[in-house]
Order: sequence, then C-alpha cells, then structure tokens
Amino acid sequence: SEEDFNLAAIYVSDAQYNRNVYFDTSPQAVRLYMLYNHWALKVLLYFFMLVNLSLAIFEDPAVYPLPIWATMLVEILCLLIFTIRVIHYAKVILRDKFWKDPKNICIIVILTLTLVDMIIYGALKAANYYGVRWSRVLRPLLLVNVTEGRQLRRAFRSIRNALPQIFYVFLLFMFSILIFALMALKLLGKRGLTNINGTPYFTSYLEIMFDLYVLVTTANSPDVMMPAYNANFFFAVFFIVYILINTYIFMSVFLAVVYNNYKKYLKEEVRQLVRAKRHKMVRAFGVLQEQREEGGEPVVTQASWNQLVRLVQPNLSNAHRELLWSVSDDKNQGAIGKVAFVQLADLLNIEIITIKSRPHPLQSLCPSLYQSAPSKLLCQLVQHRAFVMVYDLIILVNAVFIGLDEENPMIANSEWVFLALYILEILLKLYVFEPRVFFSKHSFWNWFDTVIVISALVATIVNSVMKSSSHFSSRQILDIVFILRVLRLIRVVDSIKRFRTIINTLIRIGPAILTFGQLIIVVYYIFAMVGMELFKGKVTFYEQSSTDPAKAYCGNPLLNGTDFAKLNYCKNNFNDVVSSFILLVELTVVNQWHVLSSGFATVTHISARIFFVLFHFIVVIVILNIFVAFVLEAFFVEY
Amino acid sequence: SEEDFNLAAIYVSDAQYNRNVYFDTSPQAVRLYMLYNHWALKVLLYFFMLVNLSLAIFEDPAVYPLPIWATMLVEILCLLIFTIRVIHYAKVILRDKFWKDPKNICIIVILTLTLVDMIIYGALKAANYYGVRWSRVLRPLLLVNVTEGRQLRRAFRSIRNALPQIFYVFLLFMFSILIFALMALKLLGKRGLTNINGTPYFTSYLEIMFDLYVLVTTANSPDVMMPAYNANFFFAVFFIVYILINTYIFMSVFLAVVYNNYKKYLKEEVRQLVRAKRHKMVRAFGVLQEQREEGGEPVVTQASWNQLVRLVQPNLSNAHRELLWSVSDDKNQGAIGKVAFVQLADLLNIEIITIKSRPHPLQSLCPSLYQSAPSKLLCQLVQHRAFVMVYDLIILVNAVFIGLDEENPMIANSEWVFLALYILEILLKLYVFEPRVFFSKHSFWNWFDTVIVISALVATIVNSVMKSSSHFSSRQILDIVFILRVLRLIRVVDSIKRFRTIINTLIRIGPAILTFGQLIIVVYYIFAMVGMELFKGKVTFYEQSSTDPAKAYCGNPLLNGTDFAKLNYCKNNFNDVVSSFILLVELTVVNQWHVLSSGFATVTHISARIFFVLFHFIVVIVILNIFVAFVLEAFFVEY
Ligand code: NA
Repeated sequence: SEEDFNLAAIYVSDAQYNRNVYFDTSPQAVRLYMLYNHWALKVLLYFFMLVNLSLAIFEDPAVYPLPIWATMLVEILCLLIFTIRVIHYAKVILRDKFWKDPKNICIIVILTLTLVDMIIYGALKAANYYGVRWSRVLRPLLLVNVTEGRQLRRAFRSIRNALPQIFYVFLLFMFSILIFALMALKLLGKRGLTNINGTPYFTSYLEIMFDLYVLVTTANSPDVMMPAYNANFFFAVFFIVYILINTYIFMSVFLAVVYNNYKKYLKEEVRQLVRAKRHKMVRAFGVLQEQREEGGEPVVTQASWNQLVRLVQPNLSNAHRELLWSVSDDKNQGAIGKVAFVQLADLLNIEIITIKSRPHPLQSLCPSLYQSAPSKLLCQLVQHRAFVMVYDLIILVNAVFIGLDEENPMIANSEWVFLALYILEILLKLYVFEPRVFFSKHSFWNWFDTVIVISALVATIVNSVMKSSSHFSSRQILDIVFILRVLRLIRVVDSIKRFRTIINTLIRIGPAILTFGQLIIVVYYIFAMVGMELFKGKVTFYEQSSTDPAKAYCGNPLLNGTDFAKLNYCKNNFNDVVSSFILLVELTVVNQWHVLSSGFATVTHISARIFFVLFHFIVVIVILNIFVAFVLEAFFVEY
Repeated sequence: SEEDFNLAAIYVSDAQYNRNVYFDTSPQAVRLYMLYNHWALKVLLYFFMLVNLSLAIFEDPAVYPLPIWATMLVEILCLLIFTIRVIHYAKVILRDKFWKDPKNICIIVILTLTLVDMIIYGALKAANYYGVRWSRVLRPLLLVNVTEGRQLRRAFRSIRNALPQIFYVFLLFMFSILIFALMALKLLGKRGLTNINGTPYFTSYLEIMFDLYVLVTTANSPDVMMPAYNANFFFAVFFIVYILINTYIFMSVFLAVVYNNYKKYLKEEVRQLVRAKRHKMVRAFGVLQEQREEGGEPVVTQASWNQLVRLVQPNLSNAHRELLWSVSDDKNQGAIGKVAFVQLADLLNIEIITIKSRPHPLQSLCPSLYQSAPSKLLCQLVQHRAFVMVYDLIILVNAVFIGLDEENPMIANSEWVFLALYILEILLKLYVFEPRVFFSKHSFWNWFDTVIVISALVATIVNSVMKSSSHFSSRQILDIVFILRVLRLIRVVDSIKRFRTIINTLIRIGPAILTFGQLIIVVYYIFAMVGMELFKGKVTFYEQSSTDPAKAYCGNPLLNGTDFAKLNYCKNNFNDVVSSFILLVELTVVNQWHVLSSGFATVTHISARIFFVLFHFIVVIVILNIFVAFVLEAFFVEY
C-alpha cells in the first residue's frame, strides 16, 4: 500500500542521511515526519535561528539600537517557531522516546528559561530597574540541540569525551606553572629588578603565575624575561627550560590527547552509524518484502523497488535508477534479497559523475557550421596546452598592471582589455565544451572564473557609469572592483598540478570546516554575551578625527598610561556584538592577549583575567586543537 | 676458532645496535672494528666534538676571548682526532664501500675545508687583513656525518624527504600572501591611514608582504590591523579571512605534510632496519653453524652460543643467559637452528626486570632484629598508603613555607625540619626495601628524590657554614638551595596515578628528544655562526648601572626611537655565541621576532630580514613541526 511505501521510503532516507529518529510508524505520524523533513521547514528553522542570534545586533549594547518591544516581539516570534517545531517533533516520535532524549529536554528548558527571562526583564525595564538578559547565552545552544544539529552535537560529544583526559594534563600543566612561579619568585623576587616601565619585577606570586601562563602562549616573549636576562645571563636558562617544558612539550601533549580522543571517538561513531544504517534498511526491507515462492527467501521486487526509489529520490533520472537496480540485482532475477537491498542507502549516496558525451547544442542547431574546418581548428586551439599557458601569461601581466598605479589612464583603460580577454576565454570554452558539463557541480574553477569575471564586469561598468555621470566614484564599488580583480589571479594555481591537489584537498574538507565554524560561533556567542555584560561601556573608541583628550586613554582615566591605551586598542572592546566577535578573534590568535586582558582587568577588577584565561583554555587549547586534529586527519585520508 | 667467534660477535652486536657497517671480514679488520666500537673511543670522539663546537665561545666574537693561536691549536688537535677516527674507519671497512658512503666523503671534505680556511685565516690575520672563519658553519655537520650519528642522520633524511612536499605547500602559501598583499595595497594603500608611530600604513608592497608574513606567525596581531580597523569595521574581515587561511589552515597543512612524511618515512626505515638486522644475524649463524648429523639442518650448539653471548655481552649474568637459551632452544635439543638463532639480537635488547626477592641486607646481618615485631610494624607502616599521604601533606606544608618570607628566622629554621623529614623518608624506605631494588635503573623517582635531597642538604650546610663564618651568604649557593627546595615539591605528582602515566610517557620519549636536541643544535650553530658574521657589534648592551646616553639606543644611533630600543632588546644580539643562541631561541618562540628582525635590518640592510624569515621557515615550520609530529606519534604509541 501507499502507506507501506511511505514508511519504507522514510527508513531509506533516514539511513541515507544518517538520521537517527525513532519515529512513530503509524501512517499519520509517518506523513507528519515526511513533512518534518521537508527542506522548506528546515530552511525556515535555520532562518529564524539566524534571526534569533542576530537580535544581539539590535539589543542593548547594540550596533543599531532598536526599542526593546521590537526585539522582544521578534524574539517571541522566533520562540513560537521553535515551539511549533518541537511540538511537530513530539507528534512524530514515540512519547517515551521524546522525553528520554536530552536534546528535546534541552530545547524545552531553553525556551522556558528564555520566556521567563523576557518576562522578568520586561517587568524590570517597565519599572525602570536594571535588568540583565541572561538567557541570551542560551540562544546558540538551540543550534546544537535542534534535530538537524547532528554534526555539531557530535563535535560537542567528542569534546566532552576528551575533557577528562585534557583536564588531567591541564592539572599537571598548572602544577608545573605553580612550581616554576615559586622558583621565579625565590630566584628573582628579591633582586630589586624592575620592568621596563619601572614597576617591580616578579615580586607577586599571582602576577608571576599570570605572566608565566601568558609566556606559555608566547605572547609576552621575550619581554617577560628581559629584566632577568639583562641582570644575568643564566636566568635566560630558566625561561628557556620553562618554554621547552610548558610551551613545546605540554602544548604538544594537549594536541596529542585531543587528537587521540578524536580518532578513537570518530571510529566509534562511524561504527555506530553503520550499525544504525543497516538496522533501518532491514526495517525498510521488512515493510516491502514478499515471498515469491513457498518457503523461499523473502525478496523485494523490481516494481516495489522502483516505486520506493522514486519516492526517496524523485529527481533521479531513469537511467541512473536502472543502473542502481542492475548493480543490486546482479544475477538479473527481477527481485533482490535482504543483503542486496541493504546496500541501497549507500548506493544512493554515491554520486555518479556521468560523463555524458552529449553533443554540443550548437552542433544540434547548425551542425554544418560547428563541424566546419575553422570551427574544428578553434576547438583544437582552445583545448591545446598553449591556450592555458597564454592565459597564465595574461594573468601574470594583469598582476603587474594591478600592482602599478591605477591613476595612470593607460593602466586604468587596460582593465577593459583584460576584462575582454577573460570574457573571451569563457565564451571560447563555452563554444568548445558542452555548457552543462562546463558548469557541472564539480567544476569548481569554471564556476569561480565565471562568477568573478561577470561580477568584475558589472562592478567595473557601474563604476564607470557613476564616474562619467557624476564625476564621483563610490569607494565601496571601487573596493569591490579591486578585490575582484585580485581574486581573478587565483585562477593561475589551477594550472599547476601540485597546487591543484592541495587546493582540491582543502575544498573537499570545506563542508566539515563549516561544522567547525558553527561550533566556534556557539562558543564565541556565549563568550560575547558574557563579555558584553561584564565589560560594556568600560572602554570607548573615539574616531580618528576626534580631538577629545579622553581619546588618549579610551575614555577611561584608569587606562591612562597602560599598554592598552598606548597601543591604541580602544576599538577592541565589548561595546557591541560585532566588536566583541572581532575581539574574540584577536584573543583566539592569542598575540597581545595579555595586554587586552590587563586592559579590561584595569577598568574592572583583576579577576576579569579569569574570563580571558578561560577563553584561552576552551578556545585555543581545546577547540583549536580539535580543528588541527581534524585537518590532520582529513589530510591523511585525502592527500 | 677465536676469530670466527669474534666475527660472529661483531655481527650480533651490529644487529643489536642497528649498526649498518660493511666491515672487512679479515681477522685483522675485525679486531680493528671491535676497537673502533669501544665505548672509550666514542666518548673521546664526542668529547673532542664538544671541544670543537665550544671553540666558538673563545673565538672572535668571544664570550671569553683567547688568542687566535690558542684556539687554532685546539682546533688542529680536534681535526687530528677526527682524521685518526676516519682513517681507523677506512681500515675497518672495504675500500670501495668507504668511498661510496657519502658520510665519509662529507667528513673528509669538512676536514679539508676547515684546514684550508684555517690557513687562509691565519695568513690574513698575520698580514693584518680582515678574515672570516667561514668553515665554522661546517663544524656541527661533523656531528651528523660521524658513524655514531645514525639517529641524527635519520632525522635529516626524514626532513630531506619531506622537503619537496613542504616546498610546494610553501609556494602556494607564498602565493596566497602575494595575493592578499596585493589586495591590501589596493584596499588600504590610498586611504592615507597611518601607523601608531605616524608612518604611512600599507603603502609599500614589500612592507605589506613582510607584515603579512609576520601576521601568519601572529606576532604583530592585532597591531597590524588596528589602523585599518579603526578606519572601518569591515577591514577587520579582511584580516580575519587572512588569518583563517594562512595562520590556521596553511600552518595545519604544514604540520599535516610533515607528519605524513614522517610516518611514511619512519615505517620504511623500520622495515629496512628489520631486514638488515636479520641479514646480519644470518651471517653470524653462517660463521658458527655446524652440522650435527649427515644431511641435517645446520645448527649452533649451546657451547658456541654461550661463548658468543659472553663475547657480545660480557656483563650478562649466568642466570639471564640461561634464560635466553631456554627461550631459544624451547625443545631442549642442546642446539638451535637458524630461525631461533636470528632472534638473539632482539632477545639481548629485551630488558628483563628481574624481580629479585633477594633478602634485605639487614636481614642477613641481624635477622632477629629485622624480623622482630617492632621492625615488622615499621615496615608495614612505611608501605601503607597513609605513609605516602603523610609525606604528600608534608610537601604541601613545605610549599606554603617556601612561599612565605624566608627572612623570618622561624621559617628559615623550618627548612632544617623539612630536610630532616625528607632524609628520614629515604632512610625509612631504604630500611624497608632492598637497596639495589630501590636504586634500580627504572626507579626514576627514587633517584630523583635522593639526588635532590642530598644536594639540598649539602647546599644548605655550605650556605649555613658560609653565613656563620663570614656573615656573608653567596647568592649563587642560595639560588641553588632555592631551586632544589622547589624541585623537591615535584615529587608529589608521582603519588597521583593519572599524573604518573603522563609523566612516564614523557620520560620514555626523553631519549628521542635528545636526538631532536642534537638536530636543533646543528641548525642553531649554523645560524649563530652566520648571524655573528652578519650582525656582530651592531647592537651593544649596556649594564643597568651604565649612564651612557647611548644605552637608550643600544649604542647604535640608527636604533634611536625604534621598537627594538624602546623595548630594551639591546641584549638580544649576535655579539657572542651564547647571546646568539638565546636570541635564536627567542626567534624560535616567534613572538616579537618582527621587532628583532627589524632592529637588525635597521642597523644593517633591509635584506637582513631574509635571514630571519629563512630561520623561521627552517626552524619553526619544518623542524618544530617534526618535533610535534614526533611527540604526537610517541604519545599515540605509549599512552
Ligand atoms: Na605570539
């Protein structure tokens, strides 16, 4: 029956996309589940997720302030959408499974807490009290707990699994810092040395601990050792031993522990996925199986199979489907058993790059012209190696021209020549190669070329029109033109085979880097929200043109004379969500983070450093190492 | 015959220590080869190697200047020793093998070039001309090419094998920097922005390239982006994309490429070693084999085997040797075939930790006392968990006391109490455990404890005596006392099981880190020699007490107002070999290397930056990544 086919199709599609949902198998629930998996609903969900996260841009402290009622209204709309989605999910899966799954509980708790926080905050604001929107830190967690956040949950689980081991190494590492700090205090504290700004050197135990922690990140090397080194040669040995043990050995051990756990965990996850996939395919088989002969093995007929595949992947071509069938039914019996059927999920995932020797459209339109001798010669020329080399040469000349001064009218006009040459190249290639092959999903560089050249053409024309009509050129459009011009040069790497393999590896690990990007955004968002509550408005940025004397100390007299103010770091603040994100990137890069953290400690309290050390531990030691482990593993598999 | 046994013993010992020497099998050559492998000759060789390297301390620019004739004389002595060693080696191995081996050619070339250089330099100096001792860069290469430098050669070979792949990634990486620099020039060069010191921002292409290369190392983050970021929010995006691609992705790719090659190469090396070892053992078997019965398999009798093992490892106990025989001759036939014989090299390498239930010496001396009830109680107490915990507590209290002010007489005297407690602990343990077991080769912590406590006792007594006799305490001795006191605290980590496993892993990879240390010393020495020729005397360090106005700019007016002078980096110079090594460590740590390199570029020429970029590429990108790969691999195997 149709219901059976729907059920089987759901099983197959769950197996295909590694979804592990214990949905209710009643016909009504199955239909609801098919709706739940509809791409439009997922896009809608992620759109509102994005809207919900973006609210931070408009909430106090805001980049573009909006009244509280406006952001609250949008947030309630988002909460409503999320609630509907959860209810939809609850209708789809079995009651007890729903309440046993921590991710559902998480979502319900987050939604409830957010609502409670909004009510309290609204009430406080209405009564003109001070309120904190603390539930904003929970927003990114929705991204993790939503049904589609499988990859992200896997990343978090892998971190959680590695944490105990990381923690023990971290304890040992902290013990090592404690010991070295004690030694430094005893050796250097009583010598009356001074820092470069005249403050006493290495006299407070807590300060030494912080300085040595910073030294592990290398951010204050060699400054932290200079006073001791200036006093005596041998003290350099102390710092070198410290760096060897704590920066090189311990940091490598952190990477080793994270990588080791990552590999172990990944293997276990892959094993479970394979098991779950098989289980689902067996269920699908169970739904569709028939017995062709008395006492024979149950099978699925080609007719059922065809109907199933059409349901699972409606856009599959007939030829492709027939190919899959002939692979499954290799003995040509018109039906397949369980073993062959179970492979279907994997077969559907294999992308078959059909090298269609389809004729060029021009050949169908005017075969005589396309087959003529000059046309054939042209095709040969374009496909010749020399054609690529000529264009590589053009790109190099173009690079030189870009480097030259564009005020020169000769050079400014040369841009049109280059643009014309690039467009000519694309047109020639389209003349020679079948357009659908040229623009196939895997032809990254053809897409790249075409998009860049056409964008450059449009931007250059807009720029010229604006210039000639109003004698005024928009800085933004010029910037875009410049960027596109330079990006065009990247194409040259595709001509060199060695580079192509490296770049292709990087492109292939791209999607997985996106999961990693989500992970980092979740962590950044939480730190940004906490950071904004702690440090907003403590440091002010004054425009370059400002003549306010407070500009010299970022508007906070406490910063007068600190490195933070001297290095002009005023714009590195937590005054809005965008500034916070940029500041967190700077903290991830690690350099000068002690200046940044000391700046914020100066304007608040010394304990503010905890925020920055915590950030360093979580983002740099744990998450970045997972990133490195991930790139390493990907490279070993691909390269 | 004796000669046969010598030959077989040499084969076995070569197999045991993985020596691949194609020595001449004539009896005379075999005896010479046995002499060649004598430990005393090896120690002598390494001693003169060290002397030869240490000459840099006494040669111009010197830490302790010596006249040229003195250092030259010592160097000639060293060269003589090395020449004798090479001649010895030439007598040992076959003529054609000697000249086919690149390491011998290398040594002869190095020795010849050094001699030529010394003659030229001596002549120039005698005629009062300027001369450069360029052959000094060759000195560390002796360490690599000497017969015993197998591990080091393997490390260099693994680098050489990885270089082509690293090079292609490096080219792509440089291309990426070129493209970003061009974009930065176009986007930022014409906006009239200024650096914090008022100089124009991002206007010269070469400067931008250098700044962006430095940004990859994170050393000038976020300073390099602040002028652009202050001008406009969106420019931060440019720098973030740059850091993501070049710092995170490219640096991870470098690690991946190095690690991948390292693993591949290591596997191949291990395979070859196993093959060569087997080959040598088969030859040893061939020398000693006899045929016990007509047409039977050739065997080696127990008598021959015993004589052989006595020759190979004279200090092996009879019990141990009998154990090895019974393992080989498992069927108890009094003779072993080829297959069993070949395992001997590996059997000899297995360290058998014999848990000797040897009685305690006191028990043999006065059994009645040692077996008495109070004595037994004491033994039980010391072996109880509480004993460890009590001493951990004592260590913690000690740590607090160390942290307190030692000027206080009560606290100064408490040191004696702690010392007494630690000595008591060692004595108690020696009372309970058999001393040879307590001080066995693998009891790292017992050795550590005893050495530290006894040194501390000696140093504290010396210090007290000096204080009471002359009312003057030596700062150096006090420093040593402080260091020993703090080091004692480390022992606490051994009580925690989790820590113990991590530390044991680190201790086990210790020997291999030593090979790595040699590798880095070779590279540092070469860079130090070149750096001293290029930059000696350009930057001067003035003592703290100096009132010379030149102190503010390190004695070089060109440095006036530069970051190098402002940050008081005058002692970071190439004026002698020790300063050079410390500076190179700072460059390895990478932070502020742009300030250091710009300083030396200012006092010489802008192209001096090439020296620093080259150092960064070789040491940080190649060698440090090999170190990380090595720690990772070791941890995966051990942990
Ligand atoms: Na740094």
